[in-house]
Amino acid sequence: MSSSLYVIKIGGNIIDHPDALSTFLDKFSSIKAPKILVHGGGKIATKLGEKLGIVSQYVDGRRITNDETIDLVTMVYGGLINKQIVAQLQMCQTNAIGLTGTDGNSIPAHKRPVKEVDFGWVGDVETEKINTELLSALLHSQVTPVFAPLTHDQNGHILNTNADTIASSLAIALSSIFQVRLIYCFEKKGVLENVNDDNSVIRNINAQYYAQLKAENKLFEGILPKLDNAFSAIQKGVKEVLIGHADDIITNTTAQTTGTLIEA
Amino acid sequence: MSSSLYVIKIGGNIIDHPDALSTFLDKFSSIKAPKILVHGGGKIATKLGEKLGIVSQYVDGRRITNDETIDLVTMVYGGLINKQIVAQLQMCQTNAIGLTGTDGNSIPAHKRPVKEVDFGWVGDVETEKINTELLSALLHSQVTPVFAPLTHDQNGHILNTNADTIASSLAIALSSIFQVRLIYCFEKKGVLENVNDDNSVIRNINAQYYAQLKAENKLFEGILPKLDNAFSAIQKGVKEVLIGHADDIITNTTAQTTGTLIEA
Repeated sequence: MSSSLYVIKIGGNIIDHPDALSTFLDKFSSIKAPKILVHGGGKIATKLGEKLGIVSQYVDGRRITNDETIDLVTMVYGGLINKQIVAQLQMCQTNAIGLTGTDGNSIPAHKRPVKEVDFGWVGDVETEKINTELLSALLHSQVTPVFAPLTHDQNGHILNTNADTIASSLAIALSSIFQVRLIYCFEKKGVLENVNDDNSVIRNINAQYYAQLKAENKLFEGILPKLDNAFSAIQKGVKEVLIGHADDIITNTTAQTTGTLIEA
Repeated sequence: MSSSLYVIKIGGNIIDHPDALSTFLDKFSSIKAPKILVHGGGKIATKLGEKLGIVSQYVDGRRITNDETIDLVTMVYGGLINKQIVAQLQMCQTNAIGLTGTDGNSIPAHKRPVKEVDFGWVGDVETEKINTELLSALLHSQVTPVFAPLTHDQNGHILNTNADTIASSLAIALSSIFQVRLIYCFEKKGVLENVNDDNSVIRNINAQYYAQLKAENKLFEGILPKLDNAFSAIQKGVKEVLIGHADDIITNTTAQTTGTLIEA
């Protein structure tokens, strides 16, 4: 039987708060099994961009990654945030290595094709080309990869890439080697049956139950894309997806999870 | 017999010029033997610091790395410059991986002790703790490490570290596994007998000849620290040190070198 791997994604609600980040990294370090951390961007890039007079362009509410912006996020995501996380993990005795998808050709991608909108230097991951050999060699040497949300086009260009997508792509690709639990940390304890009641976490959802919940209009709309992504990852070989709070990362990497566990 | 390894350092005269950098990386990629690239900082951090209103502090002409500056160089050296080099190398079919000394605990260091001057977040490398196991595993998997001039104190702090020192420390540590040629690329073709004649390269210097050249006051003063470093590396196990021009990197990684070769 193949061994377990946790692919864990954290976003702005952790990254933008040094105390929350530090608490999370401490807990993350105590997870003994092989693990990968994927971090999003947070607000630092936006703030720095404003100071530098880089004007963000938006189309339909979605940011366009122009030349100045890709340099900005390469610095902030791939440099500042990534290396600060790695330095803190090292302090916690976790031998972390900070990577973008460019490093070791770990996550090849291509620039998103231009249809109605040219999103600029935004990458769509080529999951089947992920360098699982390098990643499993690192994991087997007790080295913990920490990914910034950046990929590359194998033609000299760095690409801005959604951190949720990076996490699910890594989980899918590494399912050929490991039994993967993909964990999305967000601001709630899990998928809520009643959006106003933080304790109404639905503990298990399978495909059938999900169809039923959707048919009954029981779910908060904002959670649907996350669940769609989760079931898509499951269909592509990921053993389990867990949606939960960063504070619960330790229990959520055991058999007794407190978040929402999604299985095939 | 152990195999060859080239540890090659480039500085601002390459990094600050995109065309020169691109030409160099193309040549670097064509070197078939295991190799490590170490890059300095260049002027980008200073320019960005000015835009952000970060005032550089100097003591005796040496920059102090305060809190704002370490964040700045972590972004620029560890993020922007490092990842752009890696992306370009990937385009040239070299499977590069961008690292700081923090990543994989590859280069542990300690904050420089405060004597007359507190240099701030500046690191002195602990050469004996360099993670040669990780680096040799990467090299044996045909992965090429590319180092930014940053280390860490294993206590959560990233440290600004001289790129020449990083290169020599890596060369010394890896001499236990490889026959290392440490190559310093600079703006001349080598150590010149006559500083006004670019073709007066001294092709070979050993310790005895170096003592003689110094006694005869034959060398340009600026080259003495480089040569002292070179002989120090040789004394600590590095097989050869070469000082030459980045343009000559291909010949300088053969037996027929055109720069200045320093041997025991």
